[in-house]
Amino acid sequence: MAKLDLMRELTLPQGGKILLLVMDGLGGLPREQGGLTELETARTPNMDRLAREGSTGLSIPVSRGIAPGSGPAHLALFGYDPLVYDIGRGVLEAIGIGLDVREGDVAIRGNFCTIDENGAITDRRAGRIPTEEGEKRVELLKDIQIDGVDISIRAGEGYRFAMVMRGEGLSPEVADTDPQATGVPPLPAKATSPSAERTAELVNRWLEEARKRLKGHEPANMVTLRGFATDPNLPKYRDVYKLKAACVAVYPMYKGVSQLVGMDVIPTGPHDSIADEFRKVGEIWNDYDFVFCHVKPTDSRGEDGDFDAKVAVIEEVDQNLPALLDLKPDVVIITGDHSTPATYRAHSWHPVPTILWAPGTHMTDPVETFGERACLGGALGQFPAPDLMPLALAHARRLVKYGA
Amino acid sequence: MAKLDLMRELTLPQGGKILLLVMDGLGGLPREQGGLTELETARTPNMDRLAREGSTGLSIPVSRGIAPGSGPAHLALFGYDPLVYDIGRGVLEAIGIGLDVREGDVAIRGNFCTIDENGAITDRRAGRIPTEEGEKRVELLKDIQIDGVDISIRAGEGYRFAMVMRGEGLSPEVADTDPQATGVPPLPAKATSPSAERTAELVNRWLEEARKRLKGHEPANMVTLRGFATDPNLPKYRDVYKLKAACVAVYPMYKGVSQLVGMDVIPTGPHDSIADEFRKVGEIWNDYDFVFCHVKPTDSRGEDGDFDAKVAVIEEVDQNLPALLDLKPDVVIITGDHSTPATYRAHSWHPVPTILWAPGTHMTDPVETFGERACLGGALGQFPAPDLMPLALAHARRLVKYGA
Repeated sequence: MAKLDLMRELTLPQGGKILLLVMDGLGGLPREQGGLTELETARTPNMDRLAREGSTGLSIPVSRGIAPGSGPAHLALFGYDPLVYDIGRGVLEAIGIGLDVREGDVAIRGNFCTIDENGAITDRRAGRIPTEEGEKRVELLKDIQIDGVDISIRAGEGYRFAMVMRGEGLSPEVADTDPQATGVPPLPAKATSPSAERTAELVNRWLEEARKRLKGHEPANMVTLRGFATDPNLPKYRDVYKLKAACVAVYPMYKGVSQLVGMDVIPTGPHDSIADEFRKVGEIWNDYDFVFCHVKPTDSRGEDGDFDAKVAVIEEVDQNLPALLDLKPDVVIITGDHSTPATYRAHSWHPVPTILWAPGTHMTDPVETFGERACLGGALGQFPAPDLMPLALAHARRLVKYGA
Repeated sequence: MAKLDLMRELTLPQGGKILLLVMDGLGGLPREQGGLTELETARTPNMDRLAREGSTGLSIPVSRGIAPGSGPAHLALFGYDPLVYDIGRGVLEAIGIGLDVREGDVAIRGNFCTIDENGAITDRRAGRIPTEEGEKRVELLKDIQIDGVDISIRAGEGYRFAMVMRGEGLSPEVADTDPQATGVPPLPAKATSPSAERTAELVNRWLEEARKRLKGHEPANMVTLRGFATDPNLPKYRDVYKLKAACVAVYPMYKGVSQLVGMDVIPTGPHDSIADEFRKVGEIWNDYDFVFCHVKPTDSRGEDGDFDAKVAVIEEVDQNLPALLDLKPDVVIITGDHSTPATYRAHSWHPVPTILWAPGTHMTDPVETFGERACLGGALGQFPAPDLMPLALAHARRLVKYGA
């Protein structure tokens, strides 16, 4: 039996309230041989107390050795094995830059490229134009009108953008228009199943108009489209877990993935601080069974390679933690979606230190502080990230016994 | 390749003798924050010696966060992933109250209910009558004769009972007769596949007679039937493991599950003590390769919420353990099927402390005592319960190398 079907069968509509606090890219590595990691360096008296009182362990996001992107890493934390529940790249890209994707929509990743006077591609990434240049080109494309379909488009990083088509009878069964080569023109959109013929035709009309508008705007004077996808129609939190769930996050990607699993996305501002986010959790706490709160800068500072700044972010979270604990959640989980060691300047595969605190149901273990090496001795052991939701529900007494 | 197929391929018909001692619901939780669990509290010099000499670890019965019933939990210990090998509720209920279920039988769970003068259900649980009242009603139904089929029926707890139909050409493809609502009559038995038409007809004849006999016996004046199921035809110990295996258990449920996997069930009395059980293991020891011995009261005292009484049961097991060790088993496994913390008064999902002792083949680890937290440092780590049988066979030198 699939795990989510098991959850659907065993979950109760009542029980304790669960707080899932994710510090993005939390896990790290020692700055030097024999040294401490970011989390081990940080002064975290509040998290240390929860580690001392509760259960600890290390979460394996996707599979040992696999460094995940934010999309699959969060799906895993939400209980959806990312090797089973595949979200199309177009959807991840679109929600990652803040576009709304719903069932029946077609989400697409786009690249600006350079074409010559014959229409052949000379640069598949348009000279890697900076984001501001991409944004200017997106302005030119924004109000292209195609009958029978609403199109949203938004700039991403550099030469990238994403678009979402909304209308009746659309299908994502359309092949990439990127020929993956230079010296040849972009491919026309082509349906890979008969039901997508009309969608491909609409896309081609849009491409024709885009080509006209981008003419003369070298080096980004044309586009290619990839990763046509639709809302993956993931099982929803209210159905599989019987939880009324909310997401408090600043970055669009995390809001997007939360929305795909049926969480309510609480409005936040792009410059909200950690304290702002925690305050918002407090404002909505009474209305939900489950709140996911996402802290981004741990990951950003790791990607920057700034060890000390990542330490500072972790300490800032710890200092603000009492605002969350004062809400008296029955189950608190503190973890990351993956590791982003500052020494590595990128997402990594290293297991992620995790606290599960639920007085009355957790197993205390000998772990006294919150850190990668400390958590090796924890009661949760090393576990696959998708097991975290069943554990959270069990500790909240929201699961009935399996079988007689 | 499925694990059991791998076993079938690798097992040898000779090797060491294995003793599997299961203390039901063994795992626990600290009585208070910072305190000890039941097992950690108990004085267990014999088990501590085995833990010191052997390998230890923690078993995960079904999946993290899942509190299993006794049926799936024992299947897992016997090496059958309970999410793959599903036993129908009717079979579990029937074997749980001591009815014999064989291939081709149809086992059914029954509830007494209350109907009004129009036949509509007014109470789906017959006012939750006590067990003695249920037993009286079962007496009224015991000798209902239906041509072509033998029917056994036995009272369960309160308003519950189970029955087993035995005869030619029966099928469990019959829908529940419980309408899951009041104000409507019980449903007639209805086949969900054409091969079950005759079974449904026989069941309806029985229901008609049951209604007549229960008339006037309010509040339990009718029945509903659920969970029609048959012997799941599990792979048998002698085939997959090449083991001649026996079960020494007092409660019907454990005898039943053992029989489903092909163990010989050794006769015991309902009031047999732990010492009595261990003596019976000694009496049959020479005739078997594998003996499963089941101790129930650890679970019962946990369910009672009686921490001290559960400690006392564990100590009683330890005091009697020399009787088993004197048999000189080559492999001794001591574990539980799941946890039943006294503080929790119910089955829980917490991993179960486990000893694997097999001088000459086990890996000694730093663990010095038998307890939940001690076992966190053990050589077996935290492992899925169905991996225990391959480990037992390996340590008994009953497995050949896999591949060249």
